[in-house]
Amino acid sequence: MATNFEQYLKHNRQKHLDELFDFLRIPSISSLSEHKEDVKTCAEWLAQSLMSAGLENVKIMETDGHPVVYGDWLHAEGKPTVLIYGHYDVQPVDPLHLWDTPPFEPTISDEKLFARGASDDKGQVFMHVKAIEALLQTTGALPVNIKMMIEGEEEVGSPNLPIFVENQKDLLAADVIVISDTGMIEKGKPTICYGLRGLCGMQINVKGTKGDLHSGLYGGGVQNAAHAIVELLASFRGKDGRILVDGFYDKVVAITDNEKKAYEALHTDEEKLRQDLGVPKLFGEKGYTFNERTWVRPTLEINGVYSGFQGEGIKTVLPSEAAAKITCRLVPDQDPDEILALIEKHIDANKPEGVTVTVEHLDKGAPYVTPYDHPAIQAAGRAYEKVYNVPTSYTRGGGSIPIVATFDQILNLPVVLMGFGLPDENFHAPNEHFHLENFDKGLLTICHYWYELTDAM
Amino acid sequence: MATNFEQYLKHNRQKHLDELFDFLRIPSISSLSEHKEDVKTCAEWLAQSLMSAGLENVKIMETDGHPVVYGDWLHAEGKPTVLIYGHYDVQPVDPLHLWDTPPFEPTISDEKLFARGASDDKGQVFMHVKAIEALLQTTGALPVNIKMMIEGEEEVGSPNLPIFVENQKDLLAADVIVISDTGMIEKGKPTICYGLRGLCGMQINVKGTKGDLHSGLYGGGVQNAAHAIVELLASFRGKDGRILVDGFYDKVVAITDNEKKAYEALHTDEEKLRQDLGVPKLFGEKGYTFNERTWVRPTLEINGVYSGFQGEGIKTVLPSEAAAKITCRLVPDQDPDEILALIEKHIDANKPEGVTVTVEHLDKGAPYVTPYDHPAIQAAGRAYEKVYNVPTSYTRGGGSIPIVATFDQILNLPVVLMGFGLPDENFHAPNEHFHLENFDKGLLTICHYWYELTDAM
Repeated sequence: MATNFEQYLKHNRQKHLDELFDFLRIPSISSLSEHKEDVKTCAEWLAQSLMSAGLENVKIMETDGHPVVYGDWLHAEGKPTVLIYGHYDVQPVDPLHLWDTPPFEPTISDEKLFARGASDDKGQVFMHVKAIEALLQTTGALPVNIKMMIEGEEEVGSPNLPIFVENQKDLLAADVIVISDTGMIEKGKPTICYGLRGLCGMQINVKGTKGDLHSGLYGGGVQNAAHAIVELLASFRGKDGRILVDGFYDKVVAITDNEKKAYEALHTDEEKLRQDLGVPKLFGEKGYTFNERTWVRPTLEINGVYSGFQGEGIKTVLPSEAAAKITCRLVPDQDPDEILALIEKHIDANKPEGVTVTVEHLDKGAPYVTPYDHPAIQAAGRAYEKVYNVPTSYTRGGGSIPIVATFDQILNLPVVLMGFGLPDENFHAPNEHFHLENFDKGLLTICHYWYELTDAM
Repeated sequence: MATNFEQYLKHNRQKHLDELFDFLRIPSISSLSEHKEDVKTCAEWLAQSLMSAGLENVKIMETDGHPVVYGDWLHAEGKPTVLIYGHYDVQPVDPLHLWDTPPFEPTISDEKLFARGASDDKGQVFMHVKAIEALLQTTGALPVNIKMMIEGEEEVGSPNLPIFVENQKDLLAADVIVISDTGMIEKGKPTICYGLRGLCGMQINVKGTKGDLHSGLYGGGVQNAAHAIVELLASFRGKDGRILVDGFYDKVVAITDNEKKAYEALHTDEEKLRQDLGVPKLFGEKGYTFNERTWVRPTLEINGVYSGFQGEGIKTVLPSEAAAKITCRLVPDQDPDEILALIEKHIDANKPEGVTVTVEHLDKGAPYVTPYDHPAIQAAGRAYEKVYNVPTSYTRGGGSIPIVATFDQILNLPVVLMGFGLPDENFHAPNEHFHLENFDKGLLTICHYWYELTDAM
């Protein structure tokens, strides 16, 4: 059976690449209104491709922005249903002069496919389509039920996705969501990122005297807004990197021994990292590795602070105002609203004298994790290993992927991030490309995954 | 004797005002090159006025900028010698449309004389000239030896004054320096400011990672420059307002009981001050009044701090750089260089991990005080009291007057700041004016002062 789809994919490789070239030639830049028609054309091309692959109920579903392309194959009775998410829109291409080849004229060089969207995300979406085609063509069926939902607004922040998902809950009902829009930690190292941190943020405003004052006439007599804000901001964190907001860590779920081992297996070179970052030493909460600190531990970071004079030389002023922006990266089971409330309480308790402090909430999003030992995660790991012949790396991401949070919140399903990109493939930048090795291996991995999944769940 | 000069001044009041009008009509704006000739004309006018008053050795002394006008009368053998300092240059006048009368067309309204330079400092310089004239005309002699040195670059920071004073040490040798370029704390309250704080400043630069980083990918893993700088800056000061730099207060000279009483006698209304400044409460080092905190206690103030994102909304960045400007106001016997060294030591000891911290020194100037009970200070107080019939207020200034520091350092003489301006007279602003009550009373006060001084010293 495996031989069948492998043979099929090998046999049709050039044909598939030609099709992918067609897909990549459509400049579906979602952020630029002059490309609105191209985005539409791209959706139509994709819908056609889904139908050719054998998907059913294919439709272009309108939103208030660019449309979503949907298709399914639901004949694997009693078997799990997978919702595949991806996007067919791409980033703008400027500065154009930095591209070695035109962004919408796909070019293969050194076994890399250069084009805007090659890895983010047309290449990866296309692999899912062709994996389905290969299985249907060689076996007449899929081992799982599949729904594909490919949107056209990911590169502008998916503004219409939450409402779309909310409205199409029944259509999108599934057992697991698979997203191929991320990457492997390095070449030849298949990687499953099974958790992402959440986010909450706040602007802190400090208001002191009516206006700035002369530091000679008033210095020592009144609170200085710059002093007040640094005192307040410094109170958030100990010198050891631990956040001192009461209750901040209360809901943090400790990682399991298996997860700890999985991170150790990555053999992250912290000394190399330190050199690359150009710092005298890495820094953070004591007792945790760099990976742990950035993946499974929460943070409270100052993103900006400003007060008073910023020009050259000296200005002996007592600033009357100061402001700072802080954001927290959250881990399960921290709740953004709860954390914001704890921070406000901390501010109240640590408010410097002689000034007024106000806050404004900024963005927020919940952390996400699909348990490391979830069958869908482990099945994906085995699928990778069958093709790449090395152990799969298990990681978490320190940042957030808003669509993951959206799916998590609305559909409440496990999410598997099965990515085939590489860190150096210039997503969002000139000379975006995709390694053909991962195109070939990824196609096989996806096919294997459906078999692994149907056995595991 | 007193009657004589009093009569003389009363009798010649209109003539003197007419002369002052002529002085004020010359637009001697030192900062604008198109007024270079006016500044020169003004120096010539003043030299002529000094000669008419009876001063000898009158000369216009060139500098690398605008000239200094000098004159003396040195026939009071065995009596103290006074060096009178003032300036004949003025500030620019823009925005012109905010003036109710043209700045160089002196106008009297409601017993106030409106013109650029009326109080700062032509009016006050002119009073010294006319006091000399009155004494010489009515008694044929002065009770003290007098040297007048009136510069033309005060409003541009006296760039050539230090070298001039250094080069003319012998010419300027005296027992006391009298400067009439300041003011009284309020109408009807003659004031002697007998001390000024010094200054030293530093820019602190924090450098973390090579560039700004994504707070999701790296947050928690490396030091954040914004966090590092707030931690460092917060370490300078306790929550109680006390500076925590080791040794910072070691050389601070405590004030005497008499000084404390003199400040209490001012009956400063701290509640009104709080309301005027618009703060929930005044703030500063515990155990000191507002006046004490701003006059006789040193400060370390943040004049500016900046790092990272300053725009609207959110940017989840880990700033790689941060900077702050701090200045200290110093009191006797703190030394600017010593204090800078102590701060550097503090920075070294409190340097946050994972970043590099560098500093750049900014301006500095020594604090100045002529002891409260110095005969020249107390004599000035008595002179005021003879004319104003209220107790003289004794204050210090929280800021610095660079020329005072210059005189103090180079000539090492007691300095008496005998000012006749009022806080609401719009120095440096549109509608600068001078209360004629203080013109009249000031002339008498100066005459009395020379008698008091010759008796006291």
